[in-house]
Amino acid sequence: MVRAGVIGASGYSGLELIRLLARHGDARVVFATSDRWQGKPVEHARSLSYVGNAEGVAAAAGCDVVFLATPAETSLELVPKLRATSARIVDLSGSFRLGDLSQYPKYYGFEHHAAALVKEAAYGLPELFRAQVKGATLVANPGCYATAAALSVAPLLRAGLIEADGVVVTAASGVSGAGRKATEDFSFMEIDSDFRPYRTLRHQHTPEIDQTLSRVAGKAVTTVFTPHLLPVKRGIVSTAVARLVAGVTPSAVQEAFATFAAEPLISLVSSPDAVRLADVVHTARCSIGAATDGKHVVVSSALDNLLKGAASQAVQNMNLLFGLPETQGLL
Amino acid sequence: MVRAGVIGASGYSGLELIRLLARHGDARVVFATSDRWQGKPVEHARSLSYVGNAEGVAAAAGCDVVFLATPAETSLELVPKLRATSARIVDLSGSFRLGDLSQYPKYYGFEHHAAALVKEAAYGLPELFRAQVKGATLVANPGCYATAAALSVAPLLRAGLIEADGVVVTAASGVSGAGRKATEDFSFMEIDSDFRPYRTLRHQHTPEIDQTLSRVAGKAVTTVFTPHLLPVKRGIVSTAVARLVAGVTPSAVQEAFATFAAEPLISLVSSPDAVRLADVVHTARCSIGAATDGKHVVVSSALDNLLKGAASQAVQNMNLLFGLPETQGLL
Amino acid sequence: MVRAGVIGASGYSGLELIRLLARHGDARVVFATSDRWQGKPVEHARSLSYVGNAEGVAAAAGCDVVFLATPAETSLELVPKLRATSARIVDLSGSFRLGDLSQYPKYYGFEHHAAALVKEAAYGLPELFRAQVKGATLVANPGCYATAAALSVAPLLRAGLIEADGVVVTAASGVSGAGRKATEDFSFMEIDSDFRPYRTLRHQHTPEIDQTLSRVAGKAVTTVFTPHLLPVKRGIVSTAVARLVAGVTPSAVQEAFATFAAEPLISLVSSPDAVRLADVVHTARCSIGAATDGKHVVVSSALDNLLKGAASQAVQNMNLLFGLPETQGLL
Amino acid sequence: MVRAGVIGASGYSGLELIRLLARHGDARVVFATSDRWQGKPVEHARSLSYVGNAEGVAAAAGCDVVFLATPAETSLELVPKLRATSARIVDLSGSFRLGDLSQYPKYYGFEHHAAALVKEAAYGLPELFRAQVKGATLVANPGCYATAAALSVAPLLRAGLIEADGVVVTAASGVSGAGRKATEDFSFMEIDSDFRPYRTLRHQHTPEIDQTLSRVAGKAVTTVFTPHLLPVKRGIVSTAVARLVAGVTPSAVQEAFATFAAEPLISLVSSPDAVRLADVVHTARCSIGAATDGKHVVVSSALDNLLKGAASQAVQNMNLLFGLPETQGLL
Repeated sequence: MVRAGVIGASGYSGLELIRLLARHGDARVVFATSDRWQGKPVEHARSLSYVGNAEGVAAAAGCDVVFLATPAETSLELVPKLRATSARIVDLSGSFRLGDLSQYPKYYGFEHHAAALVKEAAYGLPELFRAQVKGATLVANPGCYATAAALSVAPLLRAGLIEADGVVVTAASGVSGAGRKATEDFSFMEIDSDFRPYRTLRHQHTPEIDQTLSRVAGKAVTTVFTPHLLPVKRGIVSTAVARLVAGVTPSAVQEAFATFAAEPLISLVSSPDAVRLADVVHTARCSIGAATDGKHVVVSSALDNLLKGAASQAVQNMNLLFGLPETQGLL
Repeated sequence: MVRAGVIGASGYSGLELIRLLARHGDARVVFATSDRWQGKPVEHARSLSYVGNAEGVAAAAGCDVVFLATPAETSLELVPKLRATSARIVDLSGSFRLGDLSQYPKYYGFEHHAAALVKEAAYGLPELFRAQVKGATLVANPGCYATAAALSVAPLLRAGLIEADGVVVTAASGVSGAGRKATEDFSFMEIDSDFRPYRTLRHQHTPEIDQTLSRVAGKAVTTVFTPHLLPVKRGIVSTAVARLVAGVTPSAVQEAFATFAAEPLISLVSSPDAVRLADVVHTARCSIGAATDGKHVVVSSALDNLLKGAASQAVQNMNLLFGLPETQGLL
Repeated sequence: MVRAGVIGASGYSGLELIRLLARHGDARVVFATSDRWQGKPVEHARSLSYVGNAEGVAAAAGCDVVFLATPAETSLELVPKLRATSARIVDLSGSFRLGDLSQYPKYYGFEHHAAALVKEAAYGLPELFRAQVKGATLVANPGCYATAAALSVAPLLRAGLIEADGVVVTAASGVSGAGRKATEDFSFMEIDSDFRPYRTLRHQHTPEIDQTLSRVAGKAVTTVFTPHLLPVKRGIVSTAVARLVAGVTPSAVQEAFATFAAEPLISLVSSPDAVRLADVVHTARCSIGAATDGKHVVVSSALDNLLKGAASQAVQNMNLLFGLPETQGLL
Repeated sequence: MVRAGVIGASGYSGLELIRLLARHGDARVVFATSDRWQGKPVEHARSLSYVGNAEGVAAAAGCDVVFLATPAETSLELVPKLRATSARIVDLSGSFRLGDLSQYPKYYGFEHHAAALVKEAAYGLPELFRAQVKGATLVANPGCYATAAALSVAPLLRAGLIEADGVVVTAASGVSGAGRKATEDFSFMEIDSDFRPYRTLRHQHTPEIDQTLSRVAGKAVTTVFTPHLLPVKRGIVSTAVARLVAGVTPSAVQEAFATFAAEPLISLVSSPDAVRLADVVHTARCSIGAATDGKHVVVSSALDNLLKGAASQAVQNMNLLFGLPETQGLL
């Protein structure tokens, strides 16, 4: 029985994590922290009450794994403390995802000097980096957009089918992606029936996508990423467009994705037109479909930003860390 | 007083057209046709009852202008008959938009041999082709996506700032874009909380966008267009990404859009992040905002698919045809 | 030209008021106040910038009418100051609606001692109290639920068809009824797909409904009112159920509503089943339909809470105050 | 292992039933029928393909229980055939719910002469009629509104606290309550942002509610029931208002509901204001809260129309039929 602690368990991702762990079978939530709900009972884990972060860090010593569903700056502060215990760490924030620390001021708004920890962190996208995750003690759980975009484009790069510069990724996310927000911008009155781009050319998942795709390609890959805000609660659809290398055939494109055929949490569909939010929301799966016109490839993917884009991917990583079946508790 | 007839006045665009004409001031609806509502009173024009299409064609002789808010094949059949009258024609379908008739079988599913009519038709996008519209007797009113995409990219091409091949246009539309649909696919149960791409690499507005942009650029422009279906009633957001020609500065990009500064129905905003559906839905305006990272430009636009993407643009064209102030009845 | 001032013009009702006045034809906005938007231009009245409330009160001297779209306590503070000018006052809050001042602590949370002003105030529900409004200097514009409920039940009481005690009114409102809210409770995440009763047996419109219906009936009428929160932006549906007096026939019920047949802003429909939000939202109308089973009558009504439930009713009252056609600017 | 068959497994309730049975633990789906999806694999029960109804009836011989998630007329036709097998039957339609067969023509539109079967059928509302269900061979699974309304009012009648005539029940349901509908009325364009009453005074759950409450009260109870259509996918909120018998205290009202305190699938909350759809949707629970003003009681309840209002209640009944823990597979 994996003993798990969850820090930041009142955010939307943290709540999903608690829910998944409660029904996991081989894991058990040992503590859950929340600034706002301290002392209240934990839904799905009724024997527990929420405690504060400091108490959580203290309790981590009795855990096999600690999840951080906290803002990036909080994770950066807490992870060094947690490393004093023997617990493995799965951090759902962006704090340990980017190898190039110079990106943090620009994209996250803070200086980051914990180079050693970043170096030790495995990037927890199992479908691409499973081997690294297995032996890790610190896992940087990927961003929601970064998961959707990277999974959809990586097979094309790995097979050398597309140009590496200027991959265009246009995506849309439900509002839970922004976390709990008591602001007018995220009120029903502002969101319902609206749709809009945001953080154009400056979203923090851009360097993360580029880093992942560059690792996969073995050379520098650059994307132009534009996120949009959807009037739905949850889910991300990413549509990527890339220029095909001369001579690439449609069947080569389909074969590239066949490398994902055995992935239990990826649903390959026949084309972007068969990708839809409704099929993946409330699941741990990412669906992917591609089409080509001979010169370009369009590849769309969809996932639940709180699950494959956060909590279920964290549990998938936990399963890998502890030698459990990778999809346990996720189907 | 411009005497106007509306054929196909029970679809969403047709209804908007009736509503706009009813409050126009210098126009008057003389007849409105509807297969489904024959004999019923016309909302916003209560002195009228809906008649059938045949009766509408007969009544066209007494009109100064006839609008067709009909499916493309119906327009193709009716326009030659209407040309026997002296009425100007504004066709909201795609039937007279594409100069290359060979595109019709692929994108519209029918053969098209009325080459002379297509040649005579002015493409009714006033912000780009105002002069041609003014003297026209037949106006092909642009598609909703085609309006949003072309208006946002044209200034960049006109100024020679972007590469002409492989402009990536990713867009999303509310469900009214599909017209009245009594199908399970467009039921509340299927649409609510969902989002998905459709008609990838085969949407009929693709050749229309390419044609418009090629005319503006004076050379062949190709786009990769991916539409998505939004869980909202109305509105389109288009986000285009193009590669900048070497050496283009951010200020050159902003200057390119300044050519639209005097356009009464275009709202230039500071960046894609300031483009949103909520600002343009139920208006005749298109808002446009651009950003650049030195290598690429991202330009987003938003409009109401039933208004600037259909009915209000049709009225804008009518105003041009009859020498009325271009925005009459539209502000 | 009626010179109008609007205090509290950045709330949803205030914005609608500005919009209606801008297109009214015989009225002109002279000033608009807003705490949050001071100095910014006023949409729909671009020659103006928002000023503060104090400046607004000073500017009232040059107005024929001042509208207060402010919280009840603000209205209670400002109205005495505005009475020093010759401007008529239309207050959209609840501050001058209730003749029984002892209700204010319970339902509004404050003591109210301005008995003289309350006595002078006309209750601005034209369809029931048109004569009183015409000569008034201070108009208490009715609440949104109170308008929907009272209009639907009053004809039955006036005709003596229903028992006066225990009329059950169950209603639902879109979230704009709560005003601008930057709270988690009114976030998209909490509201979308939800529905719930609130303020059961303690909503402030309860005594207002009872007061109106008692005046109409000439005896004490009591209602049991339960509001619900709808996941839509705007609109109210009220469904009232009352016990018929013995011997009342269905045709008597229909005749009772015929007294509204000439009302330009009431749409009588054939039954509750023909009442729907979509028909009245964005209009100044209230639709009403009734059905009976011989023992009870069910009567539903629908209106736009920001229009017939607030701003358009305020303009309707202004039209009455100044001898203008009652529906001017409202159709 | 209970061997279960599901007839009509492509409707929304049928799909939920399959999903619940697939994860139940002590039950197994043996066959599933669907007119529309014959030959396609059954989601959540991938070893099966959908078969036709006739094949289903034949396969029933190998089942311990057969669920009918079919229209009422289909159930009426199939149940006699299924009775030839030893399988217990849980019918989710209204065909065997009403003891007074004369109600069928009025409320269901067909004549019903299977008096013996109706007499044998247990009404499957476990919280009120658990004992009868346990020994039954045919269970009439209650209607969604009927479950919500009866559970909320029954405790008050059982305790003799309210008047039995003219209980007012006003309720609202998400659109899945109407079943799969490929009609314009249930299109996103018609439903989104709308709200309306329907089937006023003639909804088929009215006699069902009256029958249940009369049984509980031991005397004739009449309700005035008005359903409304909510722009959400799933969930029902019912708000009932009844006149208190003279002298009933608020604490007596709270005590009446305490009889449900041990019910595992009922959540008692402090007042109607604490009842909300979001808490019960996607659960097998019904939440109930009451408030009183001394003369009337208002009691609201909420449930998922596809679960406690259909599929999970059917599984709850199955659990009772086979001596399994009542909430197995439902928490």
